Amino acid sequence: MIDTPYLEVDVDRLDRNLATLAGAARNVGVDVRPHAKTHKCAEIARLQIDHGAVGLTVATIGEAEAFADASDATRCTDIFIAYPLWPNAVQASRLRALAERVNLRVGVDSLAGARHLARSLGTAGLQVLVEVDSGQHRTGVAPELAGSVAEAGVAAGLDVIGVFTFPGHSYGLGDTRRAAAEQEVAALATAAAGLRANGVDPRVRSGGSTPTVGFLDAGHADVLTEIRPGVYPFNDAQQVEIGSCGFDEVALTAVATVVRRDAHRIVLDAGSKILGADRAPWATGYGRLLDHHDARIVMLSEHHAVVEFPAESPDEDIPGIGSFVRVVPNHVCNAVNLVDELVAIDGSDTRWPVIARGRNS
Amino acid sequence: MIDTPYLEVDVDRLDRNLATLAGAARNVGVDVRPHAKTHKCAEIARLQIDHGAVGLTVATIGEAEAFADASDATRCTDIFIAYPLWPNAVQASRLRALAERVNLRVGVDSLAGARHLARSLGTAGLQVLVEVDSGQHRTGVAPELAGSVAEAGVAAGLDVIGVFTFPGHSYGLGDTRRAAAEQEVAALATAAAGLRANGVDPRVRSGGSTPTVGFLDAGHADVLTEIRPGVYPFNDAQQVEIGSCGFDEVALTAVATVVRRDAHRIVLDAGSKILGADRAPWATGYGRLLDHHDARIVMLSEHHAVVEFPAESPDEDIPGIGSFVRVVPNHVCNAVNLVDELVAIDGSDTRWPVIARGRNS
Repeated sequence: MIDTPYLEVDVDRLDRNLATLAGAARNVGVDVRPHAKTHKCAEIARLQIDHGAVGLTVATIGEAEAFADASDATRCTDIFIAYPLWPNAVQASRLRALAERVNLRVGVDSLAGARHLARSLGTAGLQVLVEVDSGQHRTGVAPELAGSVAEAGVAAGLDVIGVFTFPGHSYGLGDTRRAAAEQEVAALATAAAGLRANGVDPRVRSGGSTPTVGFLDAGHADVLTEIRPGVYPFNDAQQVEIGSCGFDEVALTAVATVVRRDAHRIVLDAGSKILGADRAPWATGYGRLLDHHDARIVMLSEHHAVVEFPAESPDEDIPGIGSFVRVVPNHVCNAVNLVDELVAIDGSDTRWPVIARGRNS
Repeated sequence: MIDTPYLEVDVDRLDRNLATLAGAARNVGVDVRPHAKTHKCAEIARLQIDHGAVGLTVATIGEAEAFADASDATRCTDIFIAYPLWPNAVQASRLRALAERVNLRVGVDSLAGARHLARSLGTAGLQVLVEVDSGQHRTGVAPELAGSVAEAGVAAGLDVIGVFTFPGHSYGLGDTRRAAAEQEVAALATAAAGLRANGVDPRVRSGGSTPTVGFLDAGHADVLTEIRPGVYPFNDAQQVEIGSCGFDEVALTAVATVVRRDAHRIVLDAGSKILGADRAPWATGYGRLLDHHDARIVMLSEHHAVVEFPAESPDEDIPGIGSFVRVVPNHVCNAVNLVDELVAIDGSDTRWPVIARGRNS
């Protein structure tokens, strides 16, 4: 018996999710380089490699170090830090040390960033991709400027091998995912053409997020060479609500105890310190219940989730005080980052350490 | 040089915040039992005890264990788990072990909960407070029902010593804080009268949250015997925006690097994995900048904060790429829970371990 709340992984579902994505990528003809920020676990990275992934994506130098340290377990020595780094002297030395241990790729998204990276790292043997803004308007250069950034990087001594984008604006209802998937491909095509026009071969053209991969087809293989989805091993309430997956594809839940019940309202011992506080404007609550699709988490504190059931729910359908409930976090990446280990349900209870938890820098 | 992002504590401000609250409580005539879920640090608990706190409040058994383990450093052996516990067999044995090491108080908020606690723990030597709902509608019994829960607890063998409430509905704009403070006092008065009417002495009457303590005065000491504010050592963007404090009372910030700049928009390397994803409906963004009050965080990802400045801001007022910025998290309790240590700036750089990080159960 494990004291609630804790995060539990349904290993059968996890494996099915990995196989499904790997098969879809093979059909399209693109490589998979999963984003490990979601799971931060060596065991899951290893499963992804076993399913044919060509390497891992991470967001920070610290995550890259954690997965480099785990490369014997993951059988992966190819890591892409998909972030426009602005390294200080310490970070530059960490990047140099990493580049001696693994095949390391990093991002840049400005002329200043490319020159700073070259100045900081010299000929450190790492490879560089130019980040392109495909519509999220977070980081990344406009697609038509990617060529000039790449050219400046090469002139400064960087080994520029291509372009990447993250279509983060794919998180939304209705046609949002499809539209973002189209913009993603278009942006990478424009950026790749810009590199070629500036004499740089864009041999890597990397896109893909869990919400957009379902819209790719074989016609896109001319533009895309790899995808970097993160959430797909687990899925989460956001993916369910935007239509990327069904509840039966959710492989991670927070197991919680009902600590109070009043008629059609229950309170769980899982709050924002295990679920995360994410709530997108279009979300219907602070998470969902895996086994009660009509319930909504209407209030979330650090150690409480207040759940409301429809007024017409039969009494016996509402979990009683002391019973267990499985909560689907809104955003699984932030939930996983709150715990030291995942409880993997695969016949026995195995614990998977979250080796890159808290590796923000 | 510490790699960004990291959480930094201004120790002078922290100490001033502790002294101010301690002085206000003395003036009102109530004890202070600070909620340690905010800082989760032995060093800060010790400072609170030095400032006259009578004990600590925590939210989980795991937090209580962490602070019991640190009792030599904190000089505190009096811990209140302010939560309506529903212990399983393992948790019951953990509570029994705790009660042998510290003066332990726990919460109940239902007849079923009181009886379950008595059944699980027997005569474990802990003290019990009945949680009362003063208007947040999360946990807690209606004030007029507190007496019957207390009586049932006593009949089942519990040592019921009083009542407590958390006025969590104090988080809001306008008159929200004042109204919640009045409801808090009224609810505790009603609940205490209910205990007396049922033959139980409510010698502890515990309330108080950072947003409401400023509205207490000496007239309230008849009702309240102690307050349990959590956020006040650090404060945060929520407290600034609801008017509980000024920016000059914010003692914890996330130090971040500017990784991109476009005109009046910058991107920082601090995201929801160090700031938390909290954003109340009335919040103006995903956090604030300590040194740029007119800027707003308009988008937050796991490792990016997109910040917009007013269009009329002079160019030189906008931090350039590679420079450092101090971000005030919306909800400091969730931010602290994301890191293993705080960087305490007190002349030198001391590291304070977040000893109760992730202790959700």
